[in-house]
Amino acid sequence: MPDDFERMWADLAPVGRSARSGGYFRQPFTTPERELSAWFVGQCTARGLRVEADAFGNVVGWWDVGTGPALLTGSHLDSVLDGGAYDGPLGVVSALAALDLVRERGVVPGRPVGVSVFVEEEGSRFGLACLGSRLATGATPWESARGLTDRDGVHLGDVVEGGTSSLLDGVGTFVELHVEQGRDLVDRGAAVGVASGIWPHGRYRFEFTGAANHAGTTRMEDRVDPMLTYAFTALGANKQARLAGQRATFGRVSVEPNGTNAVPSRVTAWLDARCSTEAGLEELVGSISTQAADRADRDGTRLTVVAESVSPTVVFDDALAARVAADHEGGDWPVIPTQAGHDAGILSAAGIPTTMLFVRNPTGVSHSPDEHAEVADCLVGVSALADTLERLAR
Amino acid sequence: MPDDFERMWADLAPVGRSARSGGYFRQPFTTPERELSAWFVGQCTARGLRVEADAFGNVVGWWDVGTGPALLTGSHLDSVLDGGAYDGPLGVVSALAALDLVRERGVVPGRPVGVSVFVEEEGSRFGLACLGSRLATGATPWESARGLTDRDGVHLGDVVEGGTSSLLDGVGTFVELHVEQGRDLVDRGAAVGVASGIWPHGRYRFEFTGAANHAGTTRMEDRVDPMLTYAFTALGANKQARLAGQRATFGRVSVEPNGTNAVPSRVTAWLDARCSTEAGLEELVGSISTQAADRADRDGTRLTVVAESVSPTVVFDDALAARVAADHEGGDWPVIPTQAGHDAGILSAAGIPTTMLFVRNPTGVSHSPDEHAEVADCLVGVSALADTLERLAR
Repeated sequence: MPDDFERMWADLAPVGRSARSGGYFRQPFTTPERELSAWFVGQCTARGLRVEADAFGNVVGWWDVGTGPALLTGSHLDSVLDGGAYDGPLGVVSALAALDLVRERGVVPGRPVGVSVFVEEEGSRFGLACLGSRLATGATPWESARGLTDRDGVHLGDVVEGGTSSLLDGVGTFVELHVEQGRDLVDRGAAVGVASGIWPHGRYRFEFTGAANHAGTTRMEDRVDPMLTYAFTALGANKQARLAGQRATFGRVSVEPNGTNAVPSRVTAWLDARCSTEAGLEELVGSISTQAADRADRDGTRLTVVAESVSPTVVFDDALAARVAADHEGGDWPVIPTQAGHDAGILSAAGIPTTMLFVRNPTGVSHSPDEHAEVADCLVGVSALADTLERLAR
Repeated sequence: MPDDFERMWADLAPVGRSARSGGYFRQPFTTPERELSAWFVGQCTARGLRVEADAFGNVVGWWDVGTGPALLTGSHLDSVLDGGAYDGPLGVVSALAALDLVRERGVVPGRPVGVSVFVEEEGSRFGLACLGSRLATGATPWESARGLTDRDGVHLGDVVEGGTSSLLDGVGTFVELHVEQGRDLVDRGAAVGVASGIWPHGRYRFEFTGAANHAGTTRMEDRVDPMLTYAFTALGANKQARLAGQRATFGRVSVEPNGTNAVPSRVTAWLDARCSTEAGLEELVGSISTQAADRADRDGTRLTVVAESVSPTVVFDDALAARVAADHEGGDWPVIPTQAGHDAGILSAAGIPTTMLFVRNPTGVSHSPDEHAEVADCLVGVSALADTLERLAR
């Protein structure tokens, strides 16, 4: 008999966990993430699923049953740097447990069901979020992705074989279960919800260039210090997003030469921006960039802004969401938007009817060691996903 | 016949040089710095000097001649990250060349003359500037230094043997030649000058702690973002130092987890502060810290400030400086202060009569690949150092 939810969850708990912070470091194609991937293949095999992998490291365990377009469910196993346990793995473990539950109920789906794991959903290593699903759908061509580099200068093309993927060829519907990354379900008193869509969002690299100099002997008025331009920009971005009810974050910074006694020559900082509308996103990023450029003029520094990835608004299939959410014991599940990107958004944009289930997160904290979901809610999530598979795979 | 100045300079030019920036990465006990140290020992041996090293990696090549307290001259071979070619090596190469010149002139000193290299002057690896001279003089006890760690967590105690040093036991006078790190000599139209003293200065580690969270789903008003507290502090420090005619620099920053889509949990930033007086330094750092703490209160973040090293005012021996500077062909050499720390300051504070020679720097730029001195000025420096050795080693 395959492992149940709690046993699987306990198996994953130590992998890639920092003893210092309690957070997870599961970057794509590093030892902990490969351990998780091997564990997933083992779990598929134990369930008699046929394992199919593509040239990018994405994996699906297939239950070859019924006919017609397949129903796919799953999530990812990688984490942000020092992330939580639930973002990603909850959707994978729940998919395996939901498949077990469907079988226990004696239900035989009318079409193939697959459990999927897409690589590098967080973009924590190669900088492009949803990299695996972008490559699998062709949203990002391999030729433009193979040259992506990690922080150590390793190319994606040196880490995976690359090429093309036929993993999604027969897929008719995708369902992703995910821990909620806000407190909407807490406010509504619901253990699970269904996603209506994803805010448009993007990552923008701001490079502030100045002139290295001695921190002691160089008079303040003689400096060309890019740290000042950056600091002003970070404060301005926060203020603009706050006033507009949008999101702007500088959470990653790289300083050169990064010496205590040297005025920096360059500060590179990544802006994560998200808005309720695409026009709003464009306006927010434009306004932050303009303010930064004005300050660069005053500081004598130079600024370049590169959009590393921009994801348009995702509106999930309304009819599908309604079908998943309606007519449950205790009432309909709430349908709510999210500001977080997901592989589900990529598959949806590629024309695959897609829906998402969220599981309640007591504090709403995410991308942090404090991310959490109660076991009882996780089990409600498994049951909800099993119900959804039954409804959609008839 | 030993190599002359230009030949020695050309030998050093490629060691630890970045092809990308043209700057130098010569961190203590790394391959390039060890190569320079081996080169130095070879140069001493070629001149028939007796090489003496201590348990910290400091090295002196002794010309065992005459009697009485020794005259020591030299500088350092390590660099800041992506630093210039001149800061340090110019003093070492000039010392060797000056010794050659003294010999060519047929002068036999009345007392021993040594050429010295102190390790980790910049503090670029273990964070404590003038580490080698601090250990050699006992200003920093080995027991408190052995636990210092570099950015990879390597302890100083794992890199050097440690213990005590008798390298300076017989030393009566120290002379350090150094490229100027400002434009004072340019303004005065002089190729060389003599140091009057060093501003008090220090390094302070500011740790701003907040709460990691998702950069997309966390509303701006729900965040506890230490990046904002840091950015405000960096701008405030610059303004305060500028208005007061002092120096305050945040040139080194470390962000955790440093992911694009995560609000940081912690930002650590190092303040380099320098003032004309010790009271002024205390007031400046206190004021920057207070402003940072006030902002931390408003942001909900926490702040701790740790003084990693504080160097008091150094006033070099007035009589010695006057003796070195006076009565040259073309007039007295100018006597000027500096805002940069040097091993000379540590030896001076340890009670060894000390003086410094500066060589003109056309742009004043330092701690940067653009640091420069003209060959003609360097040769004037060698001649000036030879004159100084003759005067002081009679």
